[in-house]
Amino acid sequence: MTTSLPAEHPLRTVTSDSRLIRAYRGERPDVLPVWFMRQAGRSLPEYRELRKTAEAGADMLDTCLVPELASEITLQPVRRHGVDAGIFFSDIMIPLRLAGVDVRIESGVGPIVGEAVQTPDAVDRIVQLELTHEALAPIREAVALTVAELNETGTPLIGFAGAPFTLAAYLVAGRPTKDHLPVRTFMRRHPEAWSRLAEWAAKITGEFLRTQVMAGASAAQLFDSWAGSLSRGQYVEQVVGHSRAALDPVRELGVPLVHFGVGAGEIYGDMNIGVDTIGVDWRVPLDEAVQRMQGDVTVQGNLDPAVLAAGWDAIEPAVRDVAERGRAARAHVFNLGHGVPPETDPAQLTRIVELVHSL
Amino acid sequence: MTTSLPAEHPLRTVTSDSRLIRAYRGERPDVLPVWFMRQAGRSLPEYRELRKTAEAGADMLDTCLVPELASEITLQPVRRHGVDAGIFFSDIMIPLRLAGVDVRIESGVGPIVGEAVQTPDAVDRIVQLELTHEALAPIREAVALTVAELNETGTPLIGFAGAPFTLAAYLVAGRPTKDHLPVRTFMRRHPEAWSRLAEWAAKITGEFLRTQVMAGASAAQLFDSWAGSLSRGQYVEQVVGHSRAALDPVRELGVPLVHFGVGAGEIYGDMNIGVDTIGVDWRVPLDEAVQRMQGDVTVQGNLDPAVLAAGWDAIEPAVRDVAERGRAARAHVFNLGHGVPPETDPAQLTRIVELVHSL
Repeated sequence: MTTSLPAEHPLRTVTSDSRLIRAYRGERPDVLPVWFMRQAGRSLPEYRELRKTAEAGADMLDTCLVPELASEITLQPVRRHGVDAGIFFSDIMIPLRLAGVDVRIESGVGPIVGEAVQTPDAVDRIVQLELTHEALAPIREAVALTVAELNETGTPLIGFAGAPFTLAAYLVAGRPTKDHLPVRTFMRRHPEAWSRLAEWAAKITGEFLRTQVMAGASAAQLFDSWAGSLSRGQYVEQVVGHSRAALDPVRELGVPLVHFGVGAGEIYGDMNIGVDTIGVDWRVPLDEAVQRMQGDVTVQGNLDPAVLAAGWDAIEPAVRDVAERGRAARAHVFNLGHGVPPETDPAQLTRIVELVHSL
Repeated sequence: MTTSLPAEHPLRTVTSDSRLIRAYRGERPDVLPVWFMRQAGRSLPEYRELRKTAEAGADMLDTCLVPELASEITLQPVRRHGVDAGIFFSDIMIPLRLAGVDVRIESGVGPIVGEAVQTPDAVDRIVQLELTHEALAPIREAVALTVAELNETGTPLIGFAGAPFTLAAYLVAGRPTKDHLPVRTFMRRHPEAWSRLAEWAAKITGEFLRTQVMAGASAAQLFDSWAGSLSRGQYVEQVVGHSRAALDPVRELGVPLVHFGVGAGEIYGDMNIGVDTIGVDWRVPLDEAVQRMQGDVTVQGNLDPAVLAAGWDAIEPAVRDVAERGRAARAHVFNLGHGVPPETDPAQLTRIVELVHSL
């Protein structure tokens, strides 16, 4: 962790002229780049097959930590759909697991934390945990395997990490909750302990993301799934600084940074924490979202995932509309406004890629 | 259902000078009125006691349909907290149950519909169902019992109903879902069938609300819990007209109308469907929300429910801040930005009422 990897590292020279990286940096390549959040995973039969055979009883987090599996799952949608990027197959909770937190994914429920962090004392305990270089070995290995194959086609890999607020929301509640009430209460009741917890979450999630870039990822995206549950005031005062801190160790590596939040219409003006690209969910049209953003940034998004199961007659005009509105930004990377729903017909995704590339 | 009940009906003359009704109509009474969404129910020990003794095994919907229970539960928080209104204890799904839809509330999950409405044919079947005058008898009786007691103190009762989109979201999915994907797909895939379904939902939920007002409720609130999952474009094109239609049969009775949506920051400009008051959730400060609204309306809201468990030192400044920002509107009714969480200490709610009344 002592050497820094410049953007022109040999692992990345083959992707630096890719559509995705050029668009993230603000250029408009001839062909509009496209990938899909959660493109790897349950929507693909080859993924379901792999999980069935490879690891009966293993939970999602275990799968993420087997380098060959994480790499294979990351590569599946790139091969199938011809998307312009791989997104590292992982989970927001992985850095917690690697730091020693007792966390598992319960099928149909979501992340469950063994001992929820509900008091300042519990914060004092958890912030002692460290995410060591050794613990991150499976991540380095999975990324290296993935990049080795992607480089054959010059396809960039995007690194993946959850934002500190989203991580902390699970830690405090111990499980998924509606409106993330426990963490939002904790922030108001124990503002100093909150600050320590979020700093720690930023540190480990930042290390997780930096590790992926050091191992060869060509860009890095921070996902703040629950930022939309906050008022703008609280986001600015208690959250966004920690998201910035999570990106700092990656920023110095010189790769493009992407920041995405769900339901974040109120905070687009605050989400440019020194990033190249802001991801937009399906609620706000891209041209309108661009007007709310600070600085000259690329936008990524935002086809409504609900349209994917509505038939091609509904999909096609929706895709064209998103591409058209994306012209309001300096550059655009086509994506969904949220993750691919598990029941999606993958053939529709492939067809969307073809359409986007033809526009 | 043939006679209309004018606003000056004897049942309502005793409440027409109440703080709540005056504020809904745009006046600023000397004392700021306050009530809490979901003030009746699980946060109160007397409610938990009542459900335990009265009806082992009965589900929430059964409870709502026993007039003595629905009335008693509605009255409990008025007696305890001294709030300025009762909100009729019911459930968004009640008009569906009364129209003959197989629906139940599963504890810890939410509404479950026996046969989800997933095709245009299923829509054709469900729209045959009618909400009859006879079926609504327990609602009339519960409201009459409630109003009889509330009138002793001149406290108004607010009628309660879910908006057509929220009803339809449950009908199409058959159960609660993240992001309400099934209904949002259905709207895009079958726009005409959607329109028929939403029209029908508007009709039965409008009759449910009208029944409450005819029986003596002094105001009526339409709750659109899931409106925030839509883009503004889709809300305007496919949803808001049905919400307006749901209120039409109540509008002609002359009582104040309230429209509330969760996560509705994008659509405050569209929510004035001929209403007197718009409810605001905790995400947008009241003074900012007012700027987005069309017409001269009263605002209701919007203390963050997350603050309720954060201790009085956090609650007090938050209450004062909400009251202060509410001055930006023509009038303000203090409330939470969403329902009372079940684990709330009721003593804090009583204390908030006292503080609001002292401001």
